[in-house]
Amino acid sequence: MSTANIREEDLRKLRVNKNRLMGELHRTCSWGTGKRWGSESTETGMSRLSLSDADKQARDWFVRETTALGCTVTVDAMGNIFAVRPGRRSQEPPICAGSHLDTQPNGGRYDGILGVHAGVEMLRVLNDHDVETEHPIGVVNWTNEEGARFPISMVSSGVWAGEIPLERAHALQEVGGGQATMESELRRIGYLGDTPATYRSVPLAAHFELHIEQGPILETERKKIGVVQGVQAYRWYTITVTGRDGHTGTTPFASRADAMLLAARLIAHSHTLATQHPSALASTGIINALPGSVNTIPGTVVFTLDVRAPKDSTVEALEAALKRDFASIAASSSSSSAAAPLTVDWRTDTVSPAVHFHPDCIAAVRSAAARVTPGGSEGLVRDLVSGAGHDSVYTSRRCPTAMIFVPSRHGVSHNPEEYTSPEDCAIGAEVLMHSVLGYDRMKAGVVG
Amino acid sequence: MSTANIREEDLRKLRVNKNRLMGELHRTCSWGTGKRWGSESTETGMSRLSLSDADKQARDWFVRETTALGCTVTVDAMGNIFAVRPGRRSQEPPICAGSHLDTQPNGGRYDGILGVHAGVEMLRVLNDHDVETEHPIGVVNWTNEEGARFPISMVSSGVWAGEIPLERAHALQEVGGGQATMESELRRIGYLGDTPATYRSVPLAAHFELHIEQGPILETERKKIGVVQGVQAYRWYTITVTGRDGHTGTTPFASRADAMLLAARLIAHSHTLATQHPSALASTGIINALPGSVNTIPGTVVFTLDVRAPKDSTVEALEAALKRDFASIAASSSSSSAAAPLTVDWRTDTVSPAVHFHPDCIAAVRSAAARVTPGGSEGLVRDLVSGAGHDSVYTSRRCPTAMIFVPSRHGVSHNPEEYTSPEDCAIGAEVLMHSVLGYDRMKAGVVG
Repeated sequence: MSTANIREEDLRKLRVNKNRLMGELHRTCSWGTGKRWGSESTETGMSRLSLSDADKQARDWFVRETTALGCTVTVDAMGNIFAVRPGRRSQEPPICAGSHLDTQPNGGRYDGILGVHAGVEMLRVLNDHDVETEHPIGVVNWTNEEGARFPISMVSSGVWAGEIPLERAHALQEVGGGQATMESELRRIGYLGDTPATYRSVPLAAHFELHIEQGPILETERKKIGVVQGVQAYRWYTITVTGRDGHTGTTPFASRADAMLLAARLIAHSHTLATQHPSALASTGIINALPGSVNTIPGTVVFTLDVRAPKDSTVEALEAALKRDFASIAASSSSSSAAAPLTVDWRTDTVSPAVHFHPDCIAAVRSAAARVTPGGSEGLVRDLVSGAGHDSVYTSRRCPTAMIFVPSRHGVSHNPEEYTSPEDCAIGAEVLMHSVLGYDRMKAGVVG
Repeated sequence: MSTANIREEDLRKLRVNKNRLMGELHRTCSWGTGKRWGSESTETGMSRLSLSDADKQARDWFVRETTALGCTVTVDAMGNIFAVRPGRRSQEPPICAGSHLDTQPNGGRYDGILGVHAGVEMLRVLNDHDVETEHPIGVVNWTNEEGARFPISMVSSGVWAGEIPLERAHALQEVGGGQATMESELRRIGYLGDTPATYRSVPLAAHFELHIEQGPILETERKKIGVVQGVQAYRWYTITVTGRDGHTGTTPFASRADAMLLAARLIAHSHTLATQHPSALASTGIINALPGSVNTIPGTVVFTLDVRAPKDSTVEALEAALKRDFASIAASSSSSSAAAPLTVDWRTDTVSPAVHFHPDCIAAVRSAAARVTPGGSEGLVRDLVSGAGHDSVYTSRRCPTAMIFVPSRHGVSHNPEEYTSPEDCAIGAEVLMHSVLGYDRMKAGVVG
């Protein structure tokens, strides 16, 4: 049967197989098993760095399974794997579910992995019920999404989207001082594909990504599904506070130019300012005081500042307020003429504008979520803006895109204890499947 | 002539030879010359780590010169060198000037070095004028005062005073991963003396130490001499703030347990509290945020806190206030039940009580300072409490002790640019000499 020819109520009956989904997910987590955190066999994290031997095993599984399910598999020059199940309109680009099989070195079993497995489960369900879709339906495994081994996140969807040059990506050297590059590792494990890594060679009709929230909002509000509207804007800065080294015992406060004290005031103030801007966040993750001695007042402190908000204009306004206030706090912290002045220098490391997903894809997710969640109620569904980047940021530049979030226990991610219940994984996978099928029908002009 | 038999006005005529003092000081700085900071030949810092080859050259000079000046030289088991010029009462312990010839790895030409050279210049002046003192007069070079190579400051005066076990000091390994110990290096350079390192074997009648202030007070107030009353109390703490790691983009403020934000608030507050306690200081020199990633909210921040005040009771009161307030700030920074609690743990690393120098020695310094400073006015003299530790802290436990401070340009020390003018060095050396001579007369019962 074809989705174009079956009734809405028949489609609604399609369910994912929770046990098959979770069994397969956990089985494949034997490749790159990480730190144990509980006594159950599945209670370990993952350490499956991109293009490692463990990643090759997971990729081989993905190719083997999707091929067995009747897909055509394409590997591009970044090792992105596109598994496409034919549809009636065989010449059209596929509607894809995509995510990534690589993990952080000390990561969990769900970030990325769930999205790919949910896609494969979708293919199984379509096969089980012999569904013929209008468009080809695919699943994508994007390479090195984490940026944990080769230090650009989402680098391969970025190349596909034409935002990152292939040469730059291929030349990326692994972190930690090793000599391997993305290109050498792609070649080594046999995933340096012949197909050019570009949306022009491998176009997608749409991209849907199921992902764990990696934050606490859904759990806190007892929601099951986040309908992701886009990704918030963020900017990263390195801030250097310069004063003058001094002996902690012999330098009165009036004679100090204490870079540490000023840095502490600035970090505290960045939080205060962020709370005054709508849904804005400010965070310091790295700080270093020099020269770094118990009894030396630091003359230099360097710290990072990560500023985010759903709107670009909010980030811009917060940046302006921070720069203005940091300068005035530095001026008022500089003591008498006996001390050197305190100065604050800003370096902007990253500017990532807000991403807005496609309204048709968002509508497909919202409709699927209403259908799948218990009772069909919208009460378990919530609109969200993603706080983190995903491959969907890049796909959204070249095809209609949306994302689906499921709850993360305690909001924990990039951690072995990252956890989403089997029930929530299955709900998310079902929303993914129905989003893809709904979009397929919508795009084909089939209503209801 | 003997000081006991000469008139006060004759003693007053004794002057140090500024050019000889500074020429000798700079000449010996060819052993361990450090970073250049100006164009003049003397405008470099020093890097003369304790028991290095450069330190051996400086020690050899000290032994050679003082022997030539008629001193008996004793080297103890810590390499402390006692050069003693005979007095009339040959069986009495010597009244000594003492300091150290070792420096920080990136230090200057005055910290420690000036005090030893001023002592040698004193011996020269006494010889020039054929002065016979009542008591033997000595100069001491204490080993590894800086603690920069073997990581306990003032370790050898500490052993002499019976406060640090010889075995512990001998076993101290050099910092930076080398295998050398104090004992092996003392043996290697030929300064592992036969004399037990203890005040029982090498008693001192008194100890006077000329030192640069290492702070800005004298310069700021345009004083020439600090009459040091003692050393302020200090305590060192390591404070660990524990929250929970989180993604900077996906974790709303209400769900955070941001150890960095709390640490910033605590550091800023420690300063505020210190200003509310008399002459108290609080400083953070080392801070480390974990796991240390731009886009991860730190779950752990560890920082040092150095708290000082002239009175022990002030340090105790400030510590109590800090502990009380840190706990309450942590409690009020802990957000909703969704977040992990924020906790603050204290570890006390060092408790150094206030040191009070001997009133007789202080009186000798004050009297000498009034005599030496231009016009004899007390207007150029100021009482001070030392902010830093010195060998005089340990000598004061076993013999009457006082210190003399001279101005440090910009208060800078432990830095190549450490500088005290030749005039101020000479004034300090003259106050040192007259303090020793005055104490000799006072102790002998000779008045005016």
